[in-house]
Amino acid sequence: MNAELLTIGTEILLGDILNTNVQFLSKELAEIGISVYHHTAVGDNPERIEAAYKLAFERSDIVITTGGLGPTDDDITKEIAAKYFNKDLVIHEESFKKIKELYRNYSMTLTKGTEKEASVLAGSKTLFNKAGLAPGCIVEENGKILIMLPGPPKEAIPMYLNDVKPYLLSKSNYIYKSKTVRISGIGEAEAENMIKDLIASQSNPSIAPYAKQSEMVFRITAKAENSEEADTIIKPTLEEMYKRFGENIYGEDDTTLEECVITLLKEKGLKLACAESCTGGMVCSTLVNHPSASEAFVEGLVTYSNDAKINRLGVKKETLDTYGAVSAEVAAEMAEGVARTSGTHIGISTTGIAGPKNENTDKPVGLVYIGIYINGETKVKKFNLIGNRERIRISATTRLLDALRRELLRW
Amino acid sequence: MNAELLTIGTEILLGDILNTNVQFLSKELAEIGISVYHHTAVGDNPERIEAAYKLAFERSDIVITTGGLGPTDDDITKEIAAKYFNKDLVIHEESFKKIKELYRNYSMTLTKGTEKEASVLAGSKTLFNKAGLAPGCIVEENGKILIMLPGPPKEAIPMYLNDVKPYLLSKSNYIYKSKTVRISGIGEAEAENMIKDLIASQSNPSIAPYAKQSEMVFRITAKAENSEEADTIIKPTLEEMYKRFGENIYGEDDTTLEECVITLLKEKGLKLACAESCTGGMVCSTLVNHPSASEAFVEGLVTYSNDAKINRLGVKKETLDTYGAVSAEVAAEMAEGVARTSGTHIGISTTGIAGPKNENTDKPVGLVYIGIYINGETKVKKFNLIGNRERIRISATTRLLDALRRELLRW
Repeated sequence: MNAELLTIGTEILLGDILNTNVQFLSKELAEIGISVYHHTAVGDNPERIEAAYKLAFERSDIVITTGGLGPTDDDITKEIAAKYFNKDLVIHEESFKKIKELYRNYSMTLTKGTEKEASVLAGSKTLFNKAGLAPGCIVEENGKILIMLPGPPKEAIPMYLNDVKPYLLSKSNYIYKSKTVRISGIGEAEAENMIKDLIASQSNPSIAPYAKQSEMVFRITAKAENSEEADTIIKPTLEEMYKRFGENIYGEDDTTLEECVITLLKEKGLKLACAESCTGGMVCSTLVNHPSASEAFVEGLVTYSNDAKINRLGVKKETLDTYGAVSAEVAAEMAEGVARTSGTHIGISTTGIAGPKNENTDKPVGLVYIGIYINGETKVKKFNLIGNRERIRISATTRLLDALRRELLRW
Repeated sequence: MNAELLTIGTEILLGDILNTNVQFLSKELAEIGISVYHHTAVGDNPERIEAAYKLAFERSDIVITTGGLGPTDDDITKEIAAKYFNKDLVIHEESFKKIKELYRNYSMTLTKGTEKEASVLAGSKTLFNKAGLAPGCIVEENGKILIMLPGPPKEAIPMYLNDVKPYLLSKSNYIYKSKTVRISGIGEAEAENMIKDLIASQSNPSIAPYAKQSEMVFRITAKAENSEEADTIIKPTLEEMYKRFGENIYGEDDTTLEECVITLLKEKGLKLACAESCTGGMVCSTLVNHPSASEAFVEGLVTYSNDAKINRLGVKKETLDTYGAVSAEVAAEMAEGVARTSGTHIGISTTGIAGPKNENTDKPVGLVYIGIYINGETKVKKFNLIGNRERIRISATTRLLDALRRELLRW
């Protein structure tokens, strides 16, 4: 079965609202094996809504609409559907009762619109709106399914989860289960190239690549009769991925790079301190994203000025004068200095030119050194990163965390 | 003129990515008087992309695509457009040079995909990708306009603003000019309520509200024959906004809260140091977003552990034992301590419970204290913030910067 998501509402076309419903529904449908081939959004315009229904039913088995179920004149999703399927609109008494009570409580006058809001297509399965007023409904007609949900996510999401999802699952004999593999330290194109043959040749499980900011993600999805069978189908592909990517894989499913680093530190009983220049606190802030950061991360110093590098970390003035603040030598002294003054096993550091200009030096924007000191040993890496100031800082942060992860694996 | 937004990418249909591009583009197009009647999203499928082009050009004057410009085999937006318009793909040398340099820097091997990534439709206007690699392009053919933008918002947004918007404006007899007013420290609903009458009664200039993370933005847009006329139309409304919002307005247009703080510090010749606990580096990292941060921001300390608070900042062990790390007293000593040990006029601090759990205390998740020390005077504010760990840390960061801004205005 395939589905199409049809968003109805001029406010979406004007950009007043971010369409989070389609992301939620797409993810949910993918998980239960319903393919979504089209998202469409149209305004509150009868002709364009009708054309959208017509087109959607020509190419899709299931059409899920969001929006346009309310009481005002421009809420016409149900009206146009009724016309399209040649059905009447009938009042859903339970919904109407809820609306009438609300109006009574607020001493408001019932209008014609409230009857309209409480209506659904005759013969449809009504979806009571627990979080709002307008009911949704499911229409099955000519082998096609139309599901109408309200626009506000806080009404649409529970209505989908409580009523629509069980309905859709009852139509299928299969379950779908996924495993996500997360990779850092190699480029998008290179990663994809390494398993091109697997992606091309496999359909169950399927492998789908996703490039995220500074990392690469592959999702392996199995279609099966039950969860155990799905695991069995996924297993050989997962093993093959580990064989090919090795330690480029930093985690599975919802694991983050910072979680991976914090976990390794905890396992090995190592404490970490961090000295940042160009990243300006972003490395610390990323590590602290993880709730148990405090068990391994002791402190961070954003030594933005040369004075701070000297006074807080003991970087030598001579080193700064000879090599400049953005140098391998300073990155090394920063990493060593923060470990020494914080009393930790590990010190990490960044120093670089995030841009947009580099007034005091002839070094290029994007030049970044990262330093890693672990129990007496110091390593420095040099990168030429691209992008604007923020992008360079994010890339530097990710590369430092990935380099630290790889060091910890060896420790 | 009307436009259609065509998003291309299976990751959108799977719900892996929230489609923020269409909201951004819809808002932008509405502002320059281009009507958007349809949003469509299709996956990386040649037949469906081609059908989407065909349909879009039947019903729309301008089609703007996002996504599918990358190096991998499933990036086929340009290929299908070339087929649709019967044109060749040609390498854009400037983009190819950038890609080759990047690959050289990372010692990666150039693949066939990199040539493809650097290609655009023959005869098109090329849009160089300053923030990324793949160029976009604009094709004018048979009275229709096709504009292809990259998928990542960080690349698509500057490309739209720098190249596409001026191009679209050149097609119109009118100009549209906007002035953005940025507000922090009051809630979205409250802010909107304060100028409800203006929003409802005005059409030229129009006023559109946008709620952002922890701030509120109003955009005043004038339609005029030239820039001076637009300024004249905007002026009385802008003055009225300042009359109503007063110092809740922290800046105009692209000003950021951190820029506002750094500028005030520089004007007043004050130096700043920062001590963070729950925000874990986010305050420093936000300040360092601004390129001239180094002129006012001396250093930051992420004193995540109690030991770090004592050793680095001189917070008293007694204060920590008596009141706990998350307390007004510790926030004050952190702010004072970081100013003293860094030798700055101003010290700011955060301490709080970002969640998801609070194992060692009975204090609630979301409790945050911020401290501001300026030349001998210390102020502490308490907040009960809502949301997940990340949201709480972002809110705490914004509230601290806004509180510092308000203090600096009085100094």
